[in-house]
Amino acid sequence: MSRKILAEFLGSLLLAALVIGSGIAAQRLSDDTGLRLLENAAATAAGLYVLILVFGPVSGAHFNPVVTAVDTALGGMSWRDAAAYIPAQVAGCVSGAVLANAMFDLAPVSISATHRATAAHALSEVVATLGLVLVIFALVRSGRATLAPAAVGAYIGAAYWFTSSTSFANPAITIGRMFSDTFAGIAPASVLPFIAAQLVGAALAVVLLRVLYPAMNSPHADEAVLSSR
Amino acid sequence: MSRKILAEFLGSLLLAALVIGSGIAAQRLSDDTGLRLLENAAATAAGLYVLILVFGPVSGAHFNPVVTAVDTALGGMSWRDAAAYIPAQVAGCVSGAVLANAMFDLAPVSISATHRATAAHALSEVVATLGLVLVIFALVRSGRATLAPAAVGAYIGAAYWFTSSTSFANPAITIGRMFSDTFAGIAPASVLPFIAAQLVGAALAVVLLRVLYPAMNSPHADEAVLSSR
Amino acid sequence: MSRKILAEFLGSLLLAALVIGSGIAAQRLSDDTGLRLLENAAATAAGLYVLILVFGPVSGAHFNPVVTAVDTALGGMSWRDAAAYIPAQVAGCVSGAVLANAMFDLAPVSISATHRATAAHALSEVVATLGLVLVIFALVRSGRATLAPAAVGAYIGAAYWFTSSTSFANPAITIGRMFSDTFAGIAPASVLPFIAAQLVGAALAVVLLRVLYPAMNSPHADEAVLSSR
Amino acid sequence: MSRKILAEFLGSLLLAALVIGSGIAAQRLSDDTGLRLLENAAATAAGLYVLILVFGPVSGAHFNPVVTAVDTALGGMSWRDAAAYIPAQVAGCVSGAVLANAMFDLAPVSISATHRATAAHALSEVVATLGLVLVIFALVRSGRATLAPAAVGAYIGAAYWFTSSTSFANPAITIGRMFSDTFAGIAPASVLPFIAAQLVGAALAVVLLRVLYPAMNSPHADEAVLSSR
Repeated sequence: MSRKILAEFLGSLLLAALVIGSGIAAQRLSDDTGLRLLENAAATAAGLYVLILVFGPVSGAHFNPVVTAVDTALGGMSWRDAAAYIPAQVAGCVSGAVLANAMFDLAPVSISATHRATAAHALSEVVATLGLVLVIFALVRSGRATLAPAAVGAYIGAAYWFTSSTSFANPAITIGRMFSDTFAGIAPASVLPFIAAQLVGAALAVVLLRVLYPAMNSPHADEAVLSSR
Repeated sequence: MSRKILAEFLGSLLLAALVIGSGIAAQRLSDDTGLRLLENAAATAAGLYVLILVFGPVSGAHFNPVVTAVDTALGGMSWRDAAAYIPAQVAGCVSGAVLANAMFDLAPVSISATHRATAAHALSEVVATLGLVLVIFALVRSGRATLAPAAVGAYIGAAYWFTSSTSFANPAITIGRMFSDTFAGIAPASVLPFIAAQLVGAALAVVLLRVLYPAMNSPHADEAVLSSR
Repeated sequence: MSRKILAEFLGSLLLAALVIGSGIAAQRLSDDTGLRLLENAAATAAGLYVLILVFGPVSGAHFNPVVTAVDTALGGMSWRDAAAYIPAQVAGCVSGAVLANAMFDLAPVSISATHRATAAHALSEVVATLGLVLVIFALVRSGRATLAPAAVGAYIGAAYWFTSSTSFANPAITIGRMFSDTFAGIAPASVLPFIAAQLVGAALAVVLLRVLYPAMNSPHADEAVLSSR
Repeated sequence: MSRKILAEFLGSLLLAALVIGSGIAAQRLSDDTGLRLLENAAATAAGLYVLILVFGPVSGAHFNPVVTAVDTALGGMSWRDAAAYIPAQVAGCVSGAVLANAMFDLAPVSISATHRATAAHALSEVVATLGLVLVIFALVRSGRATLAPAAVGAYIGAAYWFTSSTSFANPAITIGRMFSDTFAGIAPASVLPFIAAQLVGAALAVVLLRVLYPAMNSPHADEAVLSSR
């Protein structure tokens, strides 16, 4: 189990460093806000694809409490294991924010002042998280988990754009992104509304998954989950 | 059958939200029109790849009346089923426009004022639709349907650029895009000419397919169509 | 044979329409020259990937006299067949220029005034063509021809940037691009120097291929060539 | 062995020409620094994917002394062979800088004046190299080396952005990039600090690999290393 926890911690750390670090670079180097987001989204999509490839065979490469919770709810892992995964993901994302700040010669921690909690953003997070969970488990439940690294990377790259919230879709990284007052940051007051919306999206996705992919519902089928091999 | 219809409705909804939503984000965040289109096209290409992966094994992931009609004409599905698919696609695309508007805090419905009906745009839609149908059914008829998600995503991403119409190539999304007066919108008066051109392109594609891929013409071979597994 | 010739003609036509059409769109919509090239290159890379997928199983998807010549020199096809392929490729690329012009509401034919013949551009075309031939036949000679669509698309997308000539690497499209006085055009006086450089690059590639991939030299191994299945 | 050395030399040469050449083009054609980096990163990612595909089956497509050293340390090749690979990589990258300069009509050699040695850049190089080594050998040690070309290309494309150093992650190309006073250049005084940081990152990666992928530790398993087939 400890190898899995290490993988979740490291993967979440690198994911947060990727998202926040590329946001800082984009903010420094480009003037146009859309171009900044394009740079941020392209780097995230490509890097996330790689992180899932690297850590998938070890831990399933969740990096996301919502994915861990849905996997558990669908019988893919035990609640006991889930309870170990989630703190590792949160600690990893916070550490990744510190690493990103350090790589760009900023104070190790700064609290973001970017308020993002609006109704439109909450709706966006519901849709973004619903989509993410649907993508992952549609692939798992149809025996195509090896496609998850590319699909999840592409999905998040697109979701930066089709939502107004730029698609956080992950409570751990939502928390981590508080700790960098830069392009990808989020103010503490916006964090809980975002997480609440993400949980709603995940719950809706579970309902849809049971309708769209009913056949492969045994715990056994889900066992390999995201092992992207 | 109802799972398939639900998949076509949801996939079309998410496709329209993707195309329109990323257009709104691009319009808000970037100044240069080409950069906006690049952002819109990249998000659409990546997201469409994922949507076909997710819904392919359930319904074939058509999201497009022209694809359904060609599939039926080539013996891949019954006209009865096609008659159920097409309304779901149109309803999905209209709903997706509403969702995109809502995610960006706009009025749920606004009618686009972007007139697009010119001869050059009609020619573009003929070429774009011809190409789309050729891509999908060349892969299906040569036993490579698992490549369709990536190929269709890449094709649409390119077709935004090599046509002057930015390649709608889909009557359902053409209708849906009426309902958002934003970057990706189309004025009602331009919708019928676009759909007519798309039908011409599809018909030409069927002729070409029969010449280029004549061997695999049995209904049986087409049965799996876009099941992208 | 006539199906193959039709495939080479149509594929070359669509390739030229893709390259020239996306160049026109980029020129109209963006101000920054680099951004225009990025749009042009991204559309070309994605579209070329798809065109090779579509036409590969029919004709090998050469669309390029240099590829046909090298394939023939390496024993993959007869000179008789090559003599039928090459005119179809040239006619296709010229027709594609006309189609691109028409899709963007320009005169069907205009002669480009963009002079490109310099020593640095000639060196660029040698390197670009050498690389293209190396990519294709390294994959073919190592039994990985199914990777050619993605590899060739990615290669051309990169070669737009690492050469000063933006990598034509194809005599047929060099001729076709004379016929559109737009972003991707080339003045007639520059065409022969470009083609000469491309032939030098191809010859160098053949030498390198014989050293790097000597084992699989039988005509039989090459037979399937680019059939991208 | 000489075929392998030639492959490492040529691949490193083309890699340096790709990185430096696309940097020169970006610098000439675009004004926004972030856009330049996006162009440079996208071309590098796409081109590196192709170079690993082409040379992988011949030499393993290292193009990087750090990769060769780690491969040797993990039992994948002999120190004798490594001693032949590394000079070929350095000579290749220097030659590639000259080729890039020539393709863009610049003096064959110019010494870069871009000072890059700061603590934040050093930390960035540690992280970038750690990540690169992790990606490559996680794939190798889990029997997924055929995914290395796409994964390494995507990783480097992302690492341009999530580090402040733009991720050199390779001592040979760090040396090569001294010889072009253009966008991708590095001043001689910054070279040793960069290489030192890269070695630290590689050593850390080896530790992590032994923990995360302990099972497949036999020399035999590593033999095929990057043969991307």
